Amino acid sequence: MPVEIPEVVIERLPVYARALNHLLSNGQEVVSSQELGTRLGVTPAQIRKDLSYFGRFGKQGRGYNVRRLLEELRQILGLERQWDLVLVGVGRLGRAILSYGGFAPQGFRIVDAFDSDPKAVGHRVGPLLIKDVAVLAESLREHAVDIGIVATPAEAAQAVIDTLVENGVKSILNYAPTAARVPAGVHIRHIDPVLALQSMTYYLKSGNVFSAK
Amino acid sequence: MPVEIPEVVIERLPVYARALNHLLSNGQEVVSSQELGTRLGVTPAQIRKDLSYFGRFGKQGRGYNVRRLLEELRQILGLERQWDLVLVGVGRLGRAILSYGGFAPQGFRIVDAFDSDPKAVGHRVGPLLIKDVAVLAESLREHAVDIGIVATPAEAAQAVIDTLVENGVKSILNYAPTAARVPAGVHIRHIDPVLALQSMTYYLKSGNVFSAK
Repeated sequence: MPVEIPEVVIERLPVYARALNHLLSNGQEVVSSQELGTRLGVTPAQIRKDLSYFGRFGKQGRGYNVRRLLEELRQILGLERQWDLVLVGVGRLGRAILSYGGFAPQGFRIVDAFDSDPKAVGHRVGPLLIKDVAVLAESLREHAVDIGIVATPAEAAQAVIDTLVENGVKSILNYAPTAARVPAGVHIRHIDPVLALQSMTYYLKSGNVFSAK
Repeated sequence: MPVEIPEVVIERLPVYARALNHLLSNGQEVVSSQELGTRLGVTPAQIRKDLSYFGRFGKQGRGYNVRRLLEELRQILGLERQWDLVLVGVGRLGRAILSYGGFAPQGFRIVDAFDSDPKAVGHRVGPLLIKDVAVLAESLREHAVDIGIVATPAEAAQAVIDTLVENGVKSILNYAPTAARVPAGVHIRHIDPVLALQSMTYYLKSGNVFSAK
C-alpha cells in the first residue's frame, strides 16, 4: 500500500518543479536544498523532508542533479502527459482564463467551454465555440475530460460541479466564491482572491506575530 | 508574547467566517462543529482545534453561537475595517480583477491601478484612471496602501513587488506566475491556477492515495 502523502507536500512539488525548470533554462546542473530554499522562501529542511516521501534524490553534501530531480517530479505529478479540461462560465473571468497563455505550454488543454447566457452561447472565444451548459452532461459523456474549471457565479457553481462529477470529472478547479462540496474521491481546489486577502489582513493588524511558512 | 499560530490555520478562518455568514443569512443561530465540518469538508476536530488557538467559543455539546463566532472571527482577521489596495498590471486579468464585484462588499477597495503599456495608461476602467507604473513609488508615498495586487507578466513581477515593498506595502497578492521573493515581515500569497492544476494531476494518476485535507 502506498504511503499517504500530505496534500500540502503535493501542493509544494509544482513550485519546486518550476524553480528547477528555471535553473535548468539558466544552465544550472546542480542545486543545494539551501539554494533552492532561499529562492523559494522555504527552509532547506522542508525541501529535504518533502522530497524524502518519494525516495532519495540528493547525495549528502553534493546537492541535487537539477535535470534528474525535475524529471522525477514531473513523473510523480503526472506532468509528462496532456490533460483535457472543460471550462464552465465564460464571463469576464472565464474569458481571461481562456485567453491565458500559461495553460497549454504546461500540457493543460481547454477543449470545451460552456455558458448559460444565450448572448454568449454560439460565439467564439479564440478557437473555442461556447456551448450551452444544458449540453454539458451529454458533452462529457461523449468526450471524457480530466479536469473541470468552474468560473460561474457563486449561486450556479454547486449544480455545475455536481454535473461535472456525475459525468466522471475527478478534479475541479473552482473560481466561484463558494465552498462547494464534492464526494470522496474527487479533488477540488479553490481559487478565491477574497479568501486570500481575508487571511492576509490578519498579519496587517498590529500585534500579530508573522508566522513564516 | 502572543502564541504563534500556524499560517494554515489563519488561512482556514475566512472559510469558516464565510460559512457562518451564510448560516446567519439563513437565520441559523447555532451550529455544531460537526455540521460546520460537513458543510466545509473538514473534520469537526480540525475546526475545534483551529478555533482553540483563539480561546473558547463553544460550550461542550451546545455548539457555537453563529453570530458571536462570526463577530469574533471578523475581529481576529481584521475584517471590520476597510483596506486600501493598488493593482499593478491592467491586462485582461487585471481588468477582470478590477471588474470583479466581490472585493468591495468585503471591505477591499482598489484605489489605484497601474500599467506600463502606453496604450493603457490614461484610460479608465470603471471609476479608475490607469496610471503609469513609473509613478507607482511616488503614488504610494503620497497615499499609503495596505495591500498590492500584482497581475503583471512573470518577468515584470519581481521589480513591481520590490517597489511595492520599498514603499511600505506589507501584503502582496501575486497573480504573476513566478516565485517572487519578499523580505521578512512582508506577506505574499500566490494565486496561480497552473500550480493548482499541477498538484491535482498527482491525484488523477492512477494508484495515488487520495489524502483528504
